[in-house]
Amino acid sequence: MTTLQIALARLAEELPAGSVITDAASMDAYRWDRTNSPATGMPLAVVRPASTADVQAAVRFAAATGTPIVPRGAGSGLSGGAAAIDGCLIVSLDRMRGVEVDPATHMATVQPGALNAEVKAAAATHGLWYPPDPSSFEISSIGGNVATNAGGLCCVKYGVTSDYVLGLTVVLADGRAVHLGGPRLKDVAGLPLTKLFVGSEGTLGIITEVVLRLIPAQPPRTTLVATFPSLSGAVDAVIAITRAARPSMLEFMDRTTINAVEDATRMGLDRDAAAMLVIQSDERADAASEEISLIEAICLSHGADECFATSDPDEGEAFVAARRMAVPAVERLGTLLLEDVGVPIPRLGELVTGIEEIAAEHDVTIALIAHAGDGNTHPLIVFDRQDPAQRERADRAYAAVMALAIALGGTITGEHGVGRLKQPWLGDYLGTDVLELNHRIKKALDPQNLLNPGAMLA
Amino acid sequence: MTTLQIALARLAEELPAGSVITDAASMDAYRWDRTNSPATGMPLAVVRPASTADVQAAVRFAAATGTPIVPRGAGSGLSGGAAAIDGCLIVSLDRMRGVEVDPATHMATVQPGALNAEVKAAAATHGLWYPPDPSSFEISSIGGNVATNAGGLCCVKYGVTSDYVLGLTVVLADGRAVHLGGPRLKDVAGLPLTKLFVGSEGTLGIITEVVLRLIPAQPPRTTLVATFPSLSGAVDAVIAITRAARPSMLEFMDRTTINAVEDATRMGLDRDAAAMLVIQSDERADAASEEISLIEAICLSHGADECFATSDPDEGEAFVAARRMAVPAVERLGTLLLEDVGVPIPRLGELVTGIEEIAAEHDVTIALIAHAGDGNTHPLIVFDRQDPAQRERADRAYAAVMALAIALGGTITGEHGVGRLKQPWLGDYLGTDVLELNHRIKKALDPQNLLNPGAMLA
Ligand SMILES: Cc1cc2nc3c(=O)[nH]c(=O)nc-3n(C[C@H](O)[C@H](O)[C@H](O)COP(=O)(O)OP(=O)(O)OC[C@H]3O[C@@H](n4cnc5c(N)ncnc54)[C@H](O)[C@@H]3O)c2cc1C
Ligand SMILES: Cc1cc2nc3c(=O)[nH]c(=O)nc-3n(C[C@H](O)[C@H](O)[C@H](O)COP(=O)(O)OP(=O)(O)OC[C@H]3O[C@@H](n4cnc5c(N)ncnc54)[C@H](O)[C@@H]3O)c2cc1C
Repeated sequence: MTTLQIALARLAEELPAGSVITDAASMDAYRWDRTNSPATGMPLAVVRPASTADVQAAVRFAAATGTPIVPRGAGSGLSGGAAAIDGCLIVSLDRMRGVEVDPATHMATVQPGALNAEVKAAAATHGLWYPPDPSSFEISSIGGNVATNAGGLCCVKYGVTSDYVLGLTVVLADGRAVHLGGPRLKDVAGLPLTKLFVGSEGTLGIITEVVLRLIPAQPPRTTLVATFPSLSGAVDAVIAITRAARPSMLEFMDRTTINAVEDATRMGLDRDAAAMLVIQSDERADAASEEISLIEAICLSHGADECFATSDPDEGEAFVAARRMAVPAVERLGTLLLEDVGVPIPRLGELVTGIEEIAAEHDVTIALIAHAGDGNTHPLIVFDRQDPAQRERADRAYAAVMALAIALGGTITGEHGVGRLKQPWLGDYLGTDVLELNHRIKKALDPQNLLNPGAMLA
Repeated sequence: MTTLQIALARLAEELPAGSVITDAASMDAYRWDRTNSPATGMPLAVVRPASTADVQAAVRFAAATGTPIVPRGAGSGLSGGAAAIDGCLIVSLDRMRGVEVDPATHMATVQPGALNAEVKAAAATHGLWYPPDPSSFEISSIGGNVATNAGGLCCVKYGVTSDYVLGLTVVLADGRAVHLGGPRLKDVAGLPLTKLFVGSEGTLGIITEVVLRLIPAQPPRTTLVATFPSLSGAVDAVIAITRAARPSMLEFMDRTTINAVEDATRMGLDRDAAAMLVIQSDERADAASEEISLIEAICLSHGADECFATSDPDEGEAFVAARRMAVPAVERLGTLLLEDVGVPIPRLGELVTGIEEIAAEHDVTIALIAHAGDGNTHPLIVFDRQDPAQRERADRAYAAVMALAIALGGTITGEHGVGRLKQPWLGDYLGTDVLELNHRIKKALDPQNLLNPGAMLA
């Protein structure tokens, strides 16, 4: 046995039986994320801790042996951040799933492996709500959501994951566990380190507990679905809506997406529409109809050819579900390169037009969906994996979309994270000085570069 | 002339005329903050930059000459963070006051010297609102609010300053200026550095521009004022209210404070009440009366002997103003040591009782006000500056209150910051590991310890 194998055997002894997995077949379930990147490596081992102390033991093993660590939640990530690298230790948090809701403080203490949907469900039993709602809420973990500062559909009104994180327990690169923040709405004692870990993509520490702020459950939602004969009409409507109202959801799908979803659902979507908006208000009864009427008038004045409003939550949810299944639906058309670019709202039109031009220029299909209300779009570049020329054109289109977003004052990633996929472009977006600042922080917290090396930062 | 004087003369030449002040009389207006600490030092000079470039020049001078920098907003701070140290360069942002509101994006781009009230007013002209509302909103700057992650009265529903900061321009310790974040609701490209600077108290960089998220103006507020014959009844009511409702304000004053405010205003407050709550709802008409009725019922069931509700905004505002003037009113009773401790809501009762015991034990008056809805209290320790024995007892009570908060799982500062005043206690609260983490970040960003040395971190 090598020293590395001896150390690994010791770790396996130290942890509860079955916590360390080393056979290739069993490890396969833990080494990919949703990017399914061919660059995904083969781990040395997968560890499935049951406690913060277990995580500490794993990190100490890694630090002592110089083994790179890849933290893993539910593996639904779209940036390759949880994809294995060769010889790494995967630390999978999927066994740490506790959720405790405190109705007195409107807070939840959650272990990282709990799914977002499990937190929402636990909160709901107390009449409370955990707002952040990535489309993947049923298949992504709170730890992953915090590590990526996940967004979703309600952000336009309710903000992102970071806005709900009050406290964290984090295992640092040297194996120490620290508690940051806690169940207090206000706490300014010391540097704001809690927030520094929200969106750090596993590069600064492993999150082993989260204290979340909850809010009272909101009234049932009223939904408006509007279809447009032109893309520009839909985009201009979005800009006018965000100026005049405060919907709790403002989502966008283009024609390619509408058709892909209609193929999958046969729910009767208008296949000829250039774009469709799904909009919700969660104000109380009268206020909601007022808000939805205002938004409907805006849609009509921007050329919407059909508007359908409903205060039946189930009927509304069917359209939201359609929007949420857009990625899997478009995936049936081919392999996807999934973008996540965002711009300041007023530049949304330029972004959408520019993406159309990039698609034409590179002769690829780009389906467009967007959390339109926050200027966050997901151009889905579709290509045939068997066709190397197409793959190359898709790659070039992928880079061109990011360059376009940067030129428009936007970001290369609004919510999915940089991960391994977008790491090469981070410097183009941040510039030399801010990139260097990122590296300084990383070096201060993880001098050995043990934590998720190659993700976010080179 | 010494090398230092030569360098300073060069800086004065480089900047617009009148930007550098060196005579003691004129500097006096810039060297104190609201703690008026006798430990306040005498600066080498005060610089009043008019642009980010001016700030960069000032920081380069400081870096080249090893001169410590104390950044300064409006000087309303209550932790000594903006108080001069001997030989420092005060960088006062009071001339950088631009406010630009973009109604299309619901965002404001603000220079750091603009007062919070100026931002609120500019937003209001577009039907928009900037929620964070420290009681000092008319006399504190946005730069100071961001640097301290200021709280206020609306936080119980609307969160703290950090929740509204989307972007920052910061001048780093080496004089480089970086843009972090920007006018985008979602942006996860790179480590979340924007938030790292919110609450950093001028120890990591000087903030020269802020992009703030605004929300639509809320409906006029409905106000409830409830008086209680016992402290514990009032505290239990607070706990029950936060569990059952979501008021937009939930403020607390004890008998000492009520009497001090009544002395100052003669507005007819009940001098015999043990405690008074000022509560607001900003839901729409019907929902607001519903919410206020529910809260009134809770107050009555916890022994309130008088409840007064009004939907007249001016009438309501008179009580809020009374609450906001509590600090200056109690100041008339003597010199103050102002605490800012916070606990998880369910432990509020133990905190309040404990503070009473500390007051008795140390034979000092402690007036109590609180942003009760977020568990954030301001025990005001009153003493006679001329009486050294009393001063010493007050100092001991000050330390005892922080120790109590820590023992109850609370924080030593909820919103005012650590500054120079609470720096000696930060380690007691954070513990060795988290304190060391703070120092690592500080060292990574300011290796020469030029930026606000002695504030927050030793
Ligand atoms: C169909 C679909 C729809 C989606 N929609 C959205 C959406 O609307 N909004 C959105 O934001 N995202 C969306 N996503 C992306 C993804 O679900 C999110 O990024 C999610 O937050 C990832 O959570 P996870 O548990 O799957 O994390 P993983 O994929 O396992 O990991 C993601 C990153 O977080 C790190 N990490 C995970 N857990 C921890 C931990 N405990 N400590 C430290 N680091 C950790 C990993 O190292 C990795 O870098 C979608 C994905 C799919 C497949
Ligand atoms: C009567 C009264 C009531 C108050 N009520 C509240 C309240 O309800 N909630 C609350 O949170 N606070 C309250 N405060 C405290 C104070 O007003 C806040 O801390 C406020 O945010 C300070 O802003 P300022 O511009 O006065 O900052 P200053 O006092 O000038 O500075 C405060 C700190 O911020 C740093 N700083 C200032 N500007 C910058 C910049 N541009 N870049 C980097 N660092 C900078 C300083 O170095 C210092 O450490 C109150 C104060 C008073 C006097």
